[in-house]
Amino acid sequence: MSKTSQGRFFEDYAVGQVIEHAVPRTVSGGERALYHALYPARHAIYSSDEFAASCGLDRSPIDDLAAFHLVFGKTVPDISVNAIANLGYAEGGWLRPVIEGDTLRAISEVIGVKENSNGKSGVIWVRTKGLNQWGQDVLSFIRWVMVRKRDPESPAPETVIPQYVDVLEAGDLPIPEGLDFEDYNFALAGEPHRWGDYEVGEQIDHVDGVTIEEAEHMLATRLWQNTAKVHFDATAHEDGKRLIYGGHIISVARALSFNGLANAQMIVGLNAGAHANPCFAGDTVRAWSEVLDRAETDAPGVGAIRLRLVATKGEAFKLRDGDGRYLNDVLLDLDYWALMPM
Amino acid sequence: MSKTSQGRFFEDYAVGQVIEHAVPRTVSGGERALYHALYPARHAIYSSDEFAASCGLDRSPIDDLAAFHLVFGKTVPDISVNAIANLGYAEGGWLRPVIEGDTLRAISEVIGVKENSNGKSGVIWVRTKGLNQWGQDVLSFIRWVMVRKRDPESPAPETVIPQYVDVLEAGDLPIPEGLDFEDYNFALAGEPHRWGDYEVGEQIDHVDGVTIEEAEHMLATRLWQNTAKVHFDATAHEDGKRLIYGGHIISVARALSFNGLANAQMIVGLNAGAHANPCFAGDTVRAWSEVLDRAETDAPGVGAIRLRLVATKGEAFKLRDGDGRYLNDVLLDLDYWALMPM
Amino acid sequence: MSKTSQGRFFEDYAVGQVIEHAVPRTVSGGERALYHALYPARHAIYSSDEFAASCGLDRSPIDDLAAFHLVFGKTVPDISVNAIANLGYAEGGWLRPVIEGDTLRAISEVIGVKENSNGKSGVIWVRTKGLNQWGQDVLSFIRWVMVRKRDPESPAPETVIPQYVDVLEAGDLPIPEGLDFEDYNFALAGEPHRWGDYEVGEQIDHVDGVTIEEAEHMLATRLWQNTAKVHFDATAHEDGKRLIYGGHIISVARALSFNGLANAQMIVGLNAGAHANPCFAGDTVRAWSEVLDRAETDAPGVGAIRLRLVATKGEAFKLRDGDGRYLNDVLLDLDYWALMPM
Repeated sequence: MSKTSQGRFFEDYAVGQVIEHAVPRTVSGGERALYHALYPARHAIYSSDEFAASCGLDRSPIDDLAAFHLVFGKTVPDISVNAIANLGYAEGGWLRPVIEGDTLRAISEVIGVKENSNGKSGVIWVRTKGLNQWGQDVLSFIRWVMVRKRDPESPAPETVIPQYVDVLEAGDLPIPEGLDFEDYNFALAGEPHRWGDYEVGEQIDHVDGVTIEEAEHMLATRLWQNTAKVHFDATAHEDGKRLIYGGHIISVARALSFNGLANAQMIVGLNAGAHANPCFAGDTVRAWSEVLDRAETDAPGVGAIRLRLVATKGEAFKLRDGDGRYLNDVLLDLDYWALMPM
Repeated sequence: MSKTSQGRFFEDYAVGQVIEHAVPRTVSGGERALYHALYPARHAIYSSDEFAASCGLDRSPIDDLAAFHLVFGKTVPDISVNAIANLGYAEGGWLRPVIEGDTLRAISEVIGVKENSNGKSGVIWVRTKGLNQWGQDVLSFIRWVMVRKRDPESPAPETVIPQYVDVLEAGDLPIPEGLDFEDYNFALAGEPHRWGDYEVGEQIDHVDGVTIEEAEHMLATRLWQNTAKVHFDATAHEDGKRLIYGGHIISVARALSFNGLANAQMIVGLNAGAHANPCFAGDTVRAWSEVLDRAETDAPGVGAIRLRLVATKGEAFKLRDGDGRYLNDVLLDLDYWALMPM
Repeated sequence: MSKTSQGRFFEDYAVGQVIEHAVPRTVSGGERALYHALYPARHAIYSSDEFAASCGLDRSPIDDLAAFHLVFGKTVPDISVNAIANLGYAEGGWLRPVIEGDTLRAISEVIGVKENSNGKSGVIWVRTKGLNQWGQDVLSFIRWVMVRKRDPESPAPETVIPQYVDVLEAGDLPIPEGLDFEDYNFALAGEPHRWGDYEVGEQIDHVDGVTIEEAEHMLATRLWQNTAKVHFDATAHEDGKRLIYGGHIISVARALSFNGLANAQMIVGLNAGAHANPCFAGDTVRAWSEVLDRAETDAPGVGAIRLRLVATKGEAFKLRDGDGRYLNDVLLDLDYWALMPM
């Protein structure tokens, strides 16, 4: 029996299957510091215990997307190591801030399968949860990926396509316990713009760009214990290029969005996401955002803002061609809810 | 109203103006570990809690220059994002060691303005302070930068050139509370040379060199939340080169100076500093020092040594040409006071 | 007197000499996070406090090899800065897990010297110990290196070749206090294979590869305060290549071995090791293992497994040519004992 794992193929998934992902992880100030070295992340609530306390939190959590990558990384060996493509995300919720000392593990349930008409691959849908050391949910999201079949001759399973909402209702967004933006310090946060200053349809060019280095995307991807070969082995692809983990681009874009959205402090909901085109070392990534919606919340002084975040190698505000396809320069199209002072 | 900030221009500064810089930061062992991964830093007081305790400190602080970069980085969006050049530093003081768990913020006061004769730019002087979570000063320094005008037609302000001392008096140097070098362990510190072994005028070639990588200077610069575009965006400069943050060179040089100055444990005063020439990835940086002065202090066993630290791509001990201009190979000329066992 | 050190030469070593190495270091979560960013390390006991506690430990220690590098790095300025070659290791023991907050220092005793017949260099053997803040041994190993003579004319010392065992007896392996694998969670650890599933002679191809970057090996090497010039200065070698620290390859290979040996949780003994060929940035490193032996231990549920770990740029399972010499592609041949659930 071979001791090494080749990962699962399409035939290995069945609706209802529950997969406990390996390698729990305890987070410390080390993960936080590395996140801030890898990305130009500056949202104050994730940078300062004092600022976080002034917003009603016990202390500064690790960045929302750091928690996401940490949970996501655990699923890679079981879900996407043989994936042809990451197709989408839905119903993502940040259910509880992750702080130093927390130990996270991840678990996924297969909620949908559909073989492709070519018989060589199929799509699987999973709901993944991240849990802390108390067994509390800290993160939950649906994603679907296209996975190769081991044997093209194996029979197709019954198609099950899961139900999920296209956009989370603002009333369903998880608000961290105690969050309170009534004494929010705009000077320390870096920008004066509050929730009421943003209009639906407004577009923001985040101006800055970051040229991606091999060492940086590999450090980032390893930190989340995502070990998919394509990110690390230059010989794995015929042109010698290492594919950059899509999550690296999400974090680059979110961090760049500080300039214009410094007060969109905490991502709490993920509605949808598409990795429109691959990214490679040497590419210079820029970002722009569009305000998709706004809503009030029950927490004091806290508003919710729904944003489209686009990472691109090209011009701001250009997304699709005349046929509705993503332009070649577009790397990421993310639809999320964040919390902002009103 | 545009949500993104272009930063301030010369017209936006006025003497007496106080700027509270954004994004406070809580430091942890993560920042320390990254500092030691990014620089060949080995000064024992910043490496070991045990060694620091043997010198009368509660525990090992983060490196003096890590504290400097942390405070400096906060000022960049407000002070130097549109700077044409960083012209100088003066009256720098490390007023209190920064330890794990401390949260730092920064504040600057404009203390001088002078429009250049070309009418297109001007020089501003600011005094920046870093403060901890108790509101205590941990760092203070003056710096001056040349900044573009938004509108060349705008009128020149009244010229104010601040007073500052060229060299801090040894008696004015801040000595960390409790610092005591009477039981100093030279073996653990790495070199036998004590304060009395250094003579004014003595020059030291620190021998080693470090070839600079893009990924490393970007990680370092981001860690301090310094987001100036020129350091990260290869398309921002016509030749595709990313300018390396001058502070990166300061830290490289200081760390290299361990070989010969292992006992110059703590930088406590910055008299002057010039970034003589730009540095780019691929350059190999070396360092040499010159002893400028020595003084006793009131702390037991603690002497002060004033050093010139030069980073260069060329030969040791060569600084200026016949006309007094820095040689092209010289990157940095720093004048500082450090504390050393007597 | 020159203040900078050129390091010791062969003449400077004598049997019985004890060298206290400089720069003790306090470890934190920062070192752990960096280790996981630099290597695809996933052994659960080093990743999660909860998992470590379920195995009877107080909390998750830093990776076994991180502790090794930390101690090894301290010896470089005194032992190997002028080494022509690192020739071997023996009798390595991990005597106590290293946890956050521990401060490590290192001490070496010269236990053998032998001048080479060419009169230009010689071999020295040292036993190095790593100690924590309580003075307890945490690591011990013998290594021998070939060192240049300062003066070829200086007389040869009396040859002393130390005694050491080729392979540690399983009964002599240090088992961390309290270690208990009876409630071991194989799902969280990542693989189902237990001690009894491995047969002596079995070979495992760890499948994945990592292409090495300059920035990464330098960050790693600096983190352990190993400042040997050849790793950092591209101008130090005529072809502009920076030699990669051999320990970086050990850690890459060990981390890759997770795929197939996820349950070989803790390295506790080092029998032998050879850096067969140098490695440079751009090389893609792969790894394979061979089971050399198995033994029971006194700890509940804990078995010992003796493994050969080979890092290579070439094919798995190819080690030596017909004359018994390492193939050019082979980078590392390591012989160690690890602890595994039975």
